[in-house]
Amino acid sequence: MRVLGIDPGSNATGFGVVERQAGRLVWLAHGTLRAPRGATLAQRLATLHDGLAEAISMHRPDVAAVERVFVASNPHAALILGQARGAALVAVAAAGLPVVEYAATEIKRAIATTGRARKAQVQRMVARLLELSSAPQTDAADALAAAICHANAGPLAGLGTTARRGGRRRVRSLPRARVAP
Amino acid sequence: MRVLGIDPGSNATGFGVVERQAGRLVWLAHGTLRAPRGATLAQRLATLHDGLAEAISMHRPDVAAVERVFVASNPHAALILGQARGAALVAVAAAGLPVVEYAATEIKRAIATTGRARKAQVQRMVARLLELSSAPQTDAADALAAAICHANAGPLAGLGTTARRGGRRRVRSLPRARVAP
Repeated sequence: MRVLGIDPGSNATGFGVVERQAGRLVWLAHGTLRAPRGATLAQRLATLHDGLAEAISMHRPDVAAVERVFVASNPHAALILGQARGAALVAVAAAGLPVVEYAATEIKRAIATTGRARKAQVQRMVARLLELSSAPQTDAADALAAAICHANAGPLAGLGTTARRGGRRRVRSLPRARVAP
Repeated sequence: MRVLGIDPGSNATGFGVVERQAGRLVWLAHGTLRAPRGATLAQRLATLHDGLAEAISMHRPDVAAVERVFVASNPHAALILGQARGAALVAVAAAGLPVVEYAATEIKRAIATTGRARKAQVQRMVARLLELSSAPQTDAADALAAAICHANAGPLAGLGTTARRGGRRRVRSLPRARVAP
């Protein structure tokens, strides 16, 4: 199972692709999509959309995982985030991928020991689980975390995450996926 | 100048295309894009995106006009609207169209005598200005109203709207376009 994780944002959108191979997680790709300075809103959204479409076409994931939004108190931020999510989901739907959503706490719990991990901890844990030589940028790290969360929870749920380094096997509480409504 | 008006929404997205020809407005097309029942969020956004892309490809507008969002008190509604706007703007950007935004009151003032016109009044006025035999559905009427608003305010601003029926010439207060940030 190959999973595309997406962390949509208006200025930067992170993505990451991981694959589950015989019970362990393998990193395939990650990146951060940024529009050029001075781009209009529509151009920024198109950069996001086209970059994701390219990543999908290149890495051929089976499913996309994104953070579920529990909207906070700020309607302006919700609109901005919604626009980025809309552009991202169009790219995902065009490729025929199903979308699964996880709460932020579920994603963090899938890679760290707590659902309240900070950005830096997410970056470190993602790098460690996927044996990356350096920590990804925060948006890409969040996207990889979402992908890892689903890779651990999908049809193969129950296997847990195996971190090869150190040989320790990490069996984690497995989050429940909900298909985006 | 050919203008595509868009009224993005999560369940239904209206669009309308008008052209300014020698100082008068000519209707070219309008419609409402609806996803099938039971579609996922990503599928609904893809329906919206693909329908707009098709309308753009068919009618070749020079510019797209959408209502500017003054976000109200509801963050959930803002997120939902944002997602629809994101999907719509990706289609617009892919076609290389500039996007102009107008406040709801500016759009209403462009077609009615007040910035507080109700839905039914917008539908009637749009049908009258464009000489349609029946009033468009509300989403399409709002989209046509946005298109009319820009057609009256763009490079040819100052000409006003000529409603052929009855021979009356309507010169209206011209709203100011702002390119979407």
